[in-house]
Amino acid sequence: MDISGFVTSIITSLSIFFVLLVLHAWLSRQSRNAVIYYPSKLLKGIAPPPQQGFFPWVREAWSVSDDQILQHAGLDATVYMIFLSSAFWICMYTAFFCLPVLLPLSVTDRYFESNSKADFTNFDKAAMGNIAQKSPRLWAFAIADYWLTICTLFVLWKSYKRVMDLRLRDQASFKAKPEHFAVLVRDIPMVSIGSVEEEVDRFFRRLHPTTYETCIVVSNVSEARKLWAELESYRRRLAHAEAVYDQTNIRPKHKSGLLGLLGQTVDSIDYYKEQIERLIPVLRVAQSEVRLKHQQGAAIVIFNSRSAAAMAAQALHSEHGNHWMTMPAPEPGDVMWDNLPIAFVQRTIRQLAVYIFVAITILFYMIPIALISALISLENLEKRLKFLKPITQQPEIRTVLQAFLPQIALIVFLALLPMMLLKLSQFEGIPARSHITRAAAGKYFYFNVFNVFLGVTLAGTLFQSLNSLIKDPTSIVSLLSESLPKQATFFISFIALKFLVGYGLQLSRIIPLIIFHLRKKFLCKTEEEIKDAWAPGAFPYATCIPSDMLILTITICYAVLAPAILPFTIIYFGLGWILMRNQALNVMVSKFESGGRFWPHLHARILAALLLAQVTMLGYFGIKKFLFVPLIIPPPIATLIFAFLCKKSYYRSFSVSPLVASCEDVKEVPSTESIVKAYMPECLIPKRDFIGKSDFENQEES
Amino acid sequence: MDISGFVTSIITSLSIFFVLLVLHAWLSRQSRNAVIYYPSKLLKGIAPPPQQGFFPWVREAWSVSDDQILQHAGLDATVYMIFLSSAFWICMYTAFFCLPVLLPLSVTDRYFESNSKADFTNFDKAAMGNIAQKSPRLWAFAIADYWLTICTLFVLWKSYKRVMDLRLRDQASFKAKPEHFAVLVRDIPMVSIGSVEEEVDRFFRRLHPTTYETCIVVSNVSEARKLWAELESYRRRLAHAEAVYDQTNIRPKHKSGLLGLLGQTVDSIDYYKEQIERLIPVLRVAQSEVRLKHQQGAAIVIFNSRSAAAMAAQALHSEHGNHWMTMPAPEPGDVMWDNLPIAFVQRTIRQLAVYIFVAITILFYMIPIALISALISLENLEKRLKFLKPITQQPEIRTVLQAFLPQIALIVFLALLPMMLLKLSQFEGIPARSHITRAAAGKYFYFNVFNVFLGVTLAGTLFQSLNSLIKDPTSIVSLLSESLPKQATFFISFIALKFLVGYGLQLSRIIPLIIFHLRKKFLCKTEEEIKDAWAPGAFPYATCIPSDMLILTITICYAVLAPAILPFTIIYFGLGWILMRNQALNVMVSKFESGGRFWPHLHARILAALLLAQVTMLGYFGIKKFLFVPLIIPPPIATLIFAFLCKKSYYRSFSVSPLVASCEDVKEVPSTESIVKAYMPECLIPKRDFIGKSDFENQEES
Repeated sequence: MDISGFVTSIITSLSIFFVLLVLHAWLSRQSRNAVIYYPSKLLKGIAPPPQQGFFPWVREAWSVSDDQILQHAGLDATVYMIFLSSAFWICMYTAFFCLPVLLPLSVTDRYFESNSKADFTNFDKAAMGNIAQKSPRLWAFAIADYWLTICTLFVLWKSYKRVMDLRLRDQASFKAKPEHFAVLVRDIPMVSIGSVEEEVDRFFRRLHPTTYETCIVVSNVSEARKLWAELESYRRRLAHAEAVYDQTNIRPKHKSGLLGLLGQTVDSIDYYKEQIERLIPVLRVAQSEVRLKHQQGAAIVIFNSRSAAAMAAQALHSEHGNHWMTMPAPEPGDVMWDNLPIAFVQRTIRQLAVYIFVAITILFYMIPIALISALISLENLEKRLKFLKPITQQPEIRTVLQAFLPQIALIVFLALLPMMLLKLSQFEGIPARSHITRAAAGKYFYFNVFNVFLGVTLAGTLFQSLNSLIKDPTSIVSLLSESLPKQATFFISFIALKFLVGYGLQLSRIIPLIIFHLRKKFLCKTEEEIKDAWAPGAFPYATCIPSDMLILTITICYAVLAPAILPFTIIYFGLGWILMRNQALNVMVSKFESGGRFWPHLHARILAALLLAQVTMLGYFGIKKFLFVPLIIPPPIATLIFAFLCKKSYYRSFSVSPLVASCEDVKEVPSTESIVKAYMPECLIPKRDFIGKSDFENQEES
Repeated sequence: MDISGFVTSIITSLSIFFVLLVLHAWLSRQSRNAVIYYPSKLLKGIAPPPQQGFFPWVREAWSVSDDQILQHAGLDATVYMIFLSSAFWICMYTAFFCLPVLLPLSVTDRYFESNSKADFTNFDKAAMGNIAQKSPRLWAFAIADYWLTICTLFVLWKSYKRVMDLRLRDQASFKAKPEHFAVLVRDIPMVSIGSVEEEVDRFFRRLHPTTYETCIVVSNVSEARKLWAELESYRRRLAHAEAVYDQTNIRPKHKSGLLGLLGQTVDSIDYYKEQIERLIPVLRVAQSEVRLKHQQGAAIVIFNSRSAAAMAAQALHSEHGNHWMTMPAPEPGDVMWDNLPIAFVQRTIRQLAVYIFVAITILFYMIPIALISALISLENLEKRLKFLKPITQQPEIRTVLQAFLPQIALIVFLALLPMMLLKLSQFEGIPARSHITRAAAGKYFYFNVFNVFLGVTLAGTLFQSLNSLIKDPTSIVSLLSESLPKQATFFISFIALKFLVGYGLQLSRIIPLIIFHLRKKFLCKTEEEIKDAWAPGAFPYATCIPSDMLILTITICYAVLAPAILPFTIIYFGLGWILMRNQALNVMVSKFESGGRFWPHLHARILAALLLAQVTMLGYFGIKKFLFVPLIIPPPIATLIFAFLCKKSYYRSFSVSPLVASCEDVKEVPSTESIVKAYMPECLIPKRDFIGKSDFENQEES
């Protein structure tokens, strides 16, 4: 990618960003847009702050503390901020040395000029590729390798301590939550006498005589849930019809057949009321049947103290390790009920199948991507879609397209992937939604590294590379080391596009704004529907964390090879930190809270990126015939030892509750009834006001 | 190794065995040898059985049941029997197919005859090497591969269930043991205020208010232990001197200087009494100091119920995973006190250092062994030690030496190793002696497989092999497959030697018998000393389990390649089973009991041997150009899946106590005082009768 294309792409991204920034500043001051720009505050009943000065949101995001974010947005969001700030500081500290020392050394050397075989640009001269072989300047790069390692390990160590402190403060918070008292039990062995509920009761009362309270057995609620969903939809439509009637005084009508296109025309309000009254008894019956007939082999067990629940979650109950498997219960809203009854052997086989499928997809995804990259290069497009020629021949448009087409194709293609990975992770049988999201994010990360990073790097020599990889797996080091430096400019414009356009869209929320106003004008009639229209999502962790990790991985690998990438990443993470703090304070509302459980995985992947960089450096020093290559071996070993010590020291306290936290005094202790109610699936709750009047006092209780 | 040498070695081994068998039958009938042949029974107060018929011990060992062995010798011994019988049945079932089908197919083929390049013996014709390439007879060997896999997995599965049943019966036994109520806590953080004991008390009373009883803090007892050992030795010498005086009426004298050779001549009885009276107050002071000054960062914590202890042992106590690390306490006699205070980071570094050292030793031990094998071949010996020539020129002696020298050299050289491995395992910081023994046995097993098995196999082409291994690690498969079949005869005579001579010595206990009678006649004067002289050891698990595993590994690898090895191994394990049952019933007395904890490791290694065999078969089928090689891929995959499922289902219940076992009712519950007394190190017990009179009522209590 040549210099002019590169500069064009940067300037274009910057312009788009400034446009979006100004749009945000203008639109957010209008009160009718407050629900788009401050939904989180509004839902908590806090008024949007007064709009003074330029970009007031920056000042707010800057000045608020970690604890305030913790209270407002939860632990997950705060840990994500710590991740962004760790990434920022890793790049910043590394840049302190790499930029002032390595850049001048690279630019002033003459390897490319004297070696006429290599094709290079002026930009490539600012990278390690320009150093002559066996040059004494390589010593600076060796020192930079150590410096990068020290900075990364230091920042990670401090961040881990910060996260642990936050977690402890959060767990010992003065308000005890229902999940602290609950334990998830799976693989309950089937019994011939009595119900599952009696079996669970008997088992736990024997093992925990003084602390066991009650249990909720997981049941097959598909029938009840279907009926409940139908009733809910009728209720909403009834409310909509009544609102239309109130507003226009015309009783609405609709066709009752397929898709509203066929069948009789009926009066909507009466029709919906009939349907609701018809279905409520059916739901009652389904609810009572669930308890009698459809109990499955898993349960939520409730104890009367937090430390009893914590110990029960960690203890082995049965000598057969695959029966009565216990683990801490997820939050009530986080439970993936359908996955709980899946037995151990089936879960294992499903996991194996998913891993194999994902591995094949990752390894062979490169082929469609490479094909698409080749197909949509500008020349090819012009050949095949000749009508585009007049447009593409314009020199300005041409430069923009040439700069952007490959990146845009990659980004669109990659957008299809997260949905598929989420579905696969769900299929594995994971019991908590937050865990499914984490698993999907993990797969997406590996995908990103293998396909975007390594794939783009090796793309030019793809089949050649695969061939030599199969013959000799250790040649990957030299392959990477040769190819990486050439792709620096591509990645820099990739990063720039992602943050300038991506973050610009995030901040300005243009698309949600447009959709909201369209829906409000044309589709929504009731208060509830309007609220739905502007309801913000949670943080899109499954996609934004892997993207951030990819950019951090790219940067760490290039930090010594081509330090010019560091300023861009510093701006990416700096901007991201400010922006995401604004989103956490004002916009996002999390559906579930995992207690920062993704931190150990982020930590491990940053260390993996560091190892990848160190191994690549080893190879590259070999290519440059550095005389003291064994000096480059200690950093990877130090990284591995650090990773092992961190894992042994901290990892376990992220998956279970340490007793010191469970034994802290709390002001409020939820009652057993409230815990049971929190965990009861919605479709099984006896009383539910579908019509708006309490018709149920006469109905039979389930 | 040629046929005549092979046959000679077998015949010699058989003769030695029969001689030892007859010796045992004759010597064990004599009542003065009863303490050598029936120490276990005598210590429990059971009279030796009447000696009738030939080999009455066989009848007894055969007819006794698992439960009787469990009661008499403990769970470890019973699990070892199950291991021997599993090995026996794996070989037996495999032989049902391999012997009648594969042997005739191999012998009747003509590969070696038609291929004059290979040097072979008649024995080699009875192996897979004799099958022509691409022969349809290879199908039988492919079926044998599957048959071997099915037999091994089936036997292992049934054995695992047997072991689990035994463990559960043992754990829920009607007599609760002290270690069921105790938890070992390490990495206690150092405090500035108050003693460690107060800190532990406070911490556990807060987290376990209703179940915590008391704690024993691990202290630096080296001073007290030294004094106590000195006092013990004086006590024994005093008893010896008094016994001499009683028997001969002469007051014994000895020189009090170095090694009894220098210094004044003193009256023994008075001298020892003086020493004891001098040292007792010093011991008192040391004991009280221990409590005040030398407390270290580990403790045994005692609870008032077994399930509370079980849950506390498995729960995470502190958010810092490397503080307050809890685990189930070992048996009182099993605790390795010196290793308890070693902190987590130091343990990790020690483990890393030991693993690296062991890996280097394993990889490079081959070089000294190969050198020694070359040096002590018969020809070399004759060249260098010419005076041996007249002896070695005798044809009978020559044949024997030629047959045995390599094997004997190997066996002697290997005998030095276990001691070193035990010391290394102790250095790792493992808290329980039984665990140290297991760790040493594990290292010894890897050593055996790499050096004896692979080393002997590749010995001829050692440096060539290493060279190609470094270039291409996957060539190990073809190397193994080419070299293994040639060594079959060597291994058969190795197995024969080990069981015929080794078991013969075990059964006849010639060496302990001779040592006992010598000591009794010349050295022992007191009852206690006589008892010491015949005190039997525990099962030498650290050496006999790796040897058995080595033989099983060799056999599983050869089961399809050269099935002629199977009958020898069947006899080895059959004989071993009978013999070891006799030893368990009559001879061995275990010092500590680990509850069969080595079973998962044995299970894993048998599966590893199976995988090694399957991978070798894959390579060998490739060499023989079998057309359907992909058919050989499912067995390794099935083995891996089986290993994973077993580990997930059963492994954890071997390291911790499942709650179902802890909640079983027991008849006897030990009091807290008795538990504390069981765990108190001997050197800290206040009252101890060194002189034989209670002098201590006037002494100050510690």
